[in-house]
Amino acid sequence: MGGYGERSSYEKSIRYVRDSATPGTGASRTPLQDLYGIITPSALHFERHHAGVPQIDPRRHELLIHGLVEHELVFTMNDLRRFPSVSRIHFIECAGNSGGEHAGRPGADPQRSHGLLSCSEWTGVPLKLLLTEAGLRAKAHWLVAEGADASRLARSLPLTKALDDVLVAYGQNGEALRPEQGYPLRLVVPGWEGNVNIKWLGRIQVTDQPYMTRDEAAFYTDFMPDGKARQFTFAMEAKSIITRPAGGQVLDGRGFYDITGLAWSGRGTITRVEISTDDGKSWQEAQLNAPVLPRAVTRFSLPWRWDGSEMTLQSRCTDDTGYTQPTREELVSIRGLRPGPDGFGHYNGIKIWYVHRDGKVSHE
Amino acid sequence: MGGYGERSSYEKSIRYVRDSATPGTGASRTPLQDLYGIITPSALHFERHHAGVPQIDPRRHELLIHGLVEHELVFTMNDLRRFPSVSRIHFIECAGNSGGEHAGRPGADPQRSHGLLSCSEWTGVPLKLLLTEAGLRAKAHWLVAEGADASRLARSLPLTKALDDVLVAYGQNGEALRPEQGYPLRLVVPGWEGNVNIKWLGRIQVTDQPYMTRDEAAFYTDFMPDGKARQFTFAMEAKSIITRPAGGQVLDGRGFYDITGLAWSGRGTITRVEISTDDGKSWQEAQLNAPVLPRAVTRFSLPWRWDGSEMTLQSRCTDDTGYTQPTREELVSIRGLRPGPDGFGHYNGIKIWYVHRDGKVSHE
Repeated sequence: MGGYGERSSYEKSIRYVRDSATPGTGASRTPLQDLYGIITPSALHFERHHAGVPQIDPRRHELLIHGLVEHELVFTMNDLRRFPSVSRIHFIECAGNSGGEHAGRPGADPQRSHGLLSCSEWTGVPLKLLLTEAGLRAKAHWLVAEGADASRLARSLPLTKALDDVLVAYGQNGEALRPEQGYPLRLVVPGWEGNVNIKWLGRIQVTDQPYMTRDEAAFYTDFMPDGKARQFTFAMEAKSIITRPAGGQVLDGRGFYDITGLAWSGRGTITRVEISTDDGKSWQEAQLNAPVLPRAVTRFSLPWRWDGSEMTLQSRCTDDTGYTQPTREELVSIRGLRPGPDGFGHYNGIKIWYVHRDGKVSHE
Repeated sequence: MGGYGERSSYEKSIRYVRDSATPGTGASRTPLQDLYGIITPSALHFERHHAGVPQIDPRRHELLIHGLVEHELVFTMNDLRRFPSVSRIHFIECAGNSGGEHAGRPGADPQRSHGLLSCSEWTGVPLKLLLTEAGLRAKAHWLVAEGADASRLARSLPLTKALDDVLVAYGQNGEALRPEQGYPLRLVVPGWEGNVNIKWLGRIQVTDQPYMTRDEAAFYTDFMPDGKARQFTFAMEAKSIITRPAGGQVLDGRGFYDITGLAWSGRGTITRVEISTDDGKSWQEAQLNAPVLPRAVTRFSLPWRWDGSEMTLQSRCTDDTGYTQPTREELVSIRGLRPGPDGFGHYNGIKIWYVHRDGKVSHE
């Protein structure tokens, strides 16, 4: 028996770290193919840092709320824990997740293609409570949230969202946030691109308009074929991926397999997942594993019998706005193939896996 | 960035290990007062072992199903992972949890009084599928499940439950079971006493009647005042505890606090939690944090303003069978004060915390 347990030494699943030329910046990806259910173990939550992971003493950390407010306020972590808190299960997905698919360079396995996605139970104070405490002035319409890391990553958010469901979170999967998830404090902006879920949150400035920070002016914009750019494409659209069987895996002969994977939508709740094993000619409805929650991943499954022939496996999901995940062709016809300064963002096309006669499953 | 993350070095919450005279047997308790939301971090899930934690190589582990079946079957872990799986969030609670309250020796804090309780997202194969594969013979009414640890802990379960919602689980909170939770395989018997959730599951024998194993004949029975014993008191009845403010904590002066805690019922879903701050004279309904799931813990909260006076804090819950958590006096009037061979089991009385003028909160 011990104070704080560890996993079995037989378990080897780890995050995939992509090398970066710039120290402290880069990403690591969640091994989606190894996950069960909907909770991502905190130790395997994807990372995306612009200046490394700061070590912050929670006793010295403060959150400043200023700008277009009646009262400037500074909160310690103890102050924040005195407020009413809520816990919500939500995914966080990097805007760049599966951008390689858009570029025509599909990832070899679920981790490499879609691993900038994780899902946790987050606990924190509704931002609305803190803004109400500060008192919003008449011209307040936006805010800028800034991290206390070396990059001072900052993003603008409309107050409509801030007053809706945004959390100032200090808990993740039952305990404190992990360091790489913003310990001791982060924003959780349900369903919106990962970049706005500011980690190591130190400052919120209430403003009349968006601030046009470096991370939303020079980056995190989606280029269109006509040379214009989409900015503030906050919501992550409905998306799904089959994680087993999937690229990098080998089927152990003909017979029964349970196809399973994850579906999610930043707009709301997944209502349907369909699976095709015949190049999209026909689609079968998959079973959704309860609980099916808004802006959380949903685990789906479908019993399947492999007859040993070559085939494709693909999933498409629909959310409660009625939106259905498009094909890559449909997306490319609208958005073209011109990457933004940060690569391709907000790609949510249907993911196809290829099953070969020898049982190998691959990405092309 | 790293393959498998760790918590911040500033975080110190650990399980409380109770010493035992017998090596390998004993318990460790979850720090309920430190938890957020409903998921218990796997590293902090309570432990209860009868012969230590075996190190099992999953490639060599097998599950035998035999007895009153048409076909004896042996499953490897790979076999089991081929079956359709489901994921469910469920609590597991030791029958002896909060037995000290029954005995009149209340625990000093939530961990010491109620820490033999944890809640995880479990993933596995419905036992019904495996039993259907084996084929049940006409006289089959019970089964005996046995662990592969040195104690060969074995318990009888009626097939009505086994065919309902029991899981043969290999996943916990998104990854493999932790070693102390039965890696690589355990039974999850939703809502029933922890002891029947057999860890390191190696064998299931289908029988016509309960087997009367050591762990259900000599132990895990509740003695009644007339000298008779209740046996097979499987379900954990509705129960709740305030975890903040609670024993061992100190209020930082008068003013606002958010009372929060956990409620759960082995019979179903929590429908109401009420809180009294005036010795049970009046009760206010607490808010339940979504999702509220059957046989899972439910997080509740109630805004509260402390006026600096002495008072008591207590919670009582009601489940969807209409059952309401009783007081200690009501329980003692029926069950008396005679401990079973394993102490007091299945105690679910209302827990009272005492707030003192200096802000200290204590258990008496």
